[in-house]
Amino acid sequence: MQLIDGKKISDEIKAEIREAVEEMCAKNLRPPHLAAVLVGHDGGSETYVAHKVKACEQVGFRSSLIRYEDHVTEKELLQRIAQLNADAEVDGFIVQLPLPRHIDEQKIIEAIEPAKDVDGFHPENAGRMMIGLPCHVSATPAGIMELLRRYRIETKGKHCVVLGRSNIVGKPVSVLMAQKAQPGDATVTVCHSRTKNIAEITRQADIIIAAMGQPEFLTADMVKEGAVVIDVGTTRVPSIETKSGWKLKGDVKFDEVAPKCSYITPVPGGVGPMTVVSLLRNTLQAAKNRKQE
Amino acid sequence: MQLIDGKKISDEIKAEIREAVEEMCAKNLRPPHLAAVLVGHDGGSETYVAHKVKACEQVGFRSSLIRYEDHVTEKELLQRIAQLNADAEVDGFIVQLPLPRHIDEQKIIEAIEPAKDVDGFHPENAGRMMIGLPCHVSATPAGIMELLRRYRIETKGKHCVVLGRSNIVGKPVSVLMAQKAQPGDATVTVCHSRTKNIAEITRQADIIIAAMGQPEFLTADMVKEGAVVIDVGTTRVPSIETKSGWKLKGDVKFDEVAPKCSYITPVPGGVGPMTVVSLLRNTLQAAKNRKQE
Repeated sequence: MQLIDGKKISDEIKAEIREAVEEMCAKNLRPPHLAAVLVGHDGGSETYVAHKVKACEQVGFRSSLIRYEDHVTEKELLQRIAQLNADAEVDGFIVQLPLPRHIDEQKIIEAIEPAKDVDGFHPENAGRMMIGLPCHVSATPAGIMELLRRYRIETKGKHCVVLGRSNIVGKPVSVLMAQKAQPGDATVTVCHSRTKNIAEITRQADIIIAAMGQPEFLTADMVKEGAVVIDVGTTRVPSIETKSGWKLKGDVKFDEVAPKCSYITPVPGGVGPMTVVSLLRNTLQAAKNRKQE
Repeated sequence: MQLIDGKKISDEIKAEIREAVEEMCAKNLRPPHLAAVLVGHDGGSETYVAHKVKACEQVGFRSSLIRYEDHVTEKELLQRIAQLNADAEVDGFIVQLPLPRHIDEQKIIEAIEPAKDVDGFHPENAGRMMIGLPCHVSATPAGIMELLRRYRIETKGKHCVVLGRSNIVGKPVSVLMAQKAQPGDATVTVCHSRTKNIAEITRQADIIIAAMGQPEFLTADMVKEGAVVIDVGTTRVPSIETKSGWKLKGDVKFDEVAPKCSYITPVPGGVGPMTVVSLLRNTLQAAKNRKQE
């Protein structure tokens, strides 16, 4: 069994991005600039945005954090997005989700200029991804594909079972895995809450991507000997072992599943660190596209 | 075994559309208007476009056929598309594919205003479909879903195997079948040219959607007793039985597969007639959206 070390790979990629930024600067181009819009003070959102800002620093990006209180109106937010769309000094930006209930998230997402939508949530990016055109692929699916690529895990002709059909992970990763590409070219089965005999299906899988958000859902009896297991779950469960009072649990019962696997991602330290890196890669790409204009 | 009669269903839907058009006219609104752009004189394209124009007449739509010779430039075509986008008298339009080689098809598709893209090929429509937002779903997948709906075929929790991963059928129909909707909610497996042991997978299927474009690919030994089989194949093969010298062959070896099925679509007369109807439905919807503005 080999552990897929997302932390190590993400550090490698950060170093590569840093190099690319240095090259840009050597050519007297300004470094890529990522802006993040954060509404309110949700603990999770604060943490994620802080990670993103820190990652920008590590690779030499400029970053801006734009804060609003919970009571910001949809209109104010849309106006700010229009400014960011128009701002030639900003290559990409994200609006950290979730947003307060009085704001229509979908409307906000669709207001972002697709070329600057480095989260890859805009329908145009989702559609381009599905069709196989160049686009910003959303962070988690892009991170998963990159792990498979860097570990040279064969996917062609393999049976990949995706657990979950969310817009941000299950659907896009199932499309990417089936696409004529490397990694890709897999036979893909999408399972979800309505699937019957789920264990029967997962036992046929060469590769399992677990993204249901159900802690320790995937148990040893559901996994074929030698399978590759990618765990996308990150549920916070109460814990007396940590200072924070909680710890992250994946969708895979790691201790019993790991011994059966050829490769497996841990939680934390697997897919998680890759998501921030995917965001940086999209931003770098947006900046490069800008330079070519 | 019950034959799924696409001709009969498409006639029913045409009658419904006709009624909706009459209602619009009774309110002094102009009828929906579909325009079709046809480049060159390819036999297949001529036939398809003629069908579409005729179908418009049948339901009381206005239709326009805009013809160009093969040597039309990409620029001319893009200018015409811009006009059609701006024309308040046109609710939806299609550019019949394929186009001559010197024209970038993807560029043409992306030039069409998504609200008027009644073929549903624009990345924004593809993306909205994937995310589950209102949009123009492309004709063939929409037609398949409508057949399942009208025949009240249970899809929830069923295992649906899609053969083929094309942008116009395989990918979108696999997304629709897995989506939280009725029809939908199926466990979906996408197979393609790289899939190993394809028969082993199809034998597990409650529903098979064959869209590989390989005549008579699906044989009786690949199908479980009682399965639902949707045949999307329409390959022209030489024939001495017909005046034209060819006939349409589906992806299913009908004679031997049909006896094992609970439901099956014939070729011709199954999915085929539904595609034109889906185009009409999208155009009607575009016209209704216009009226609400």
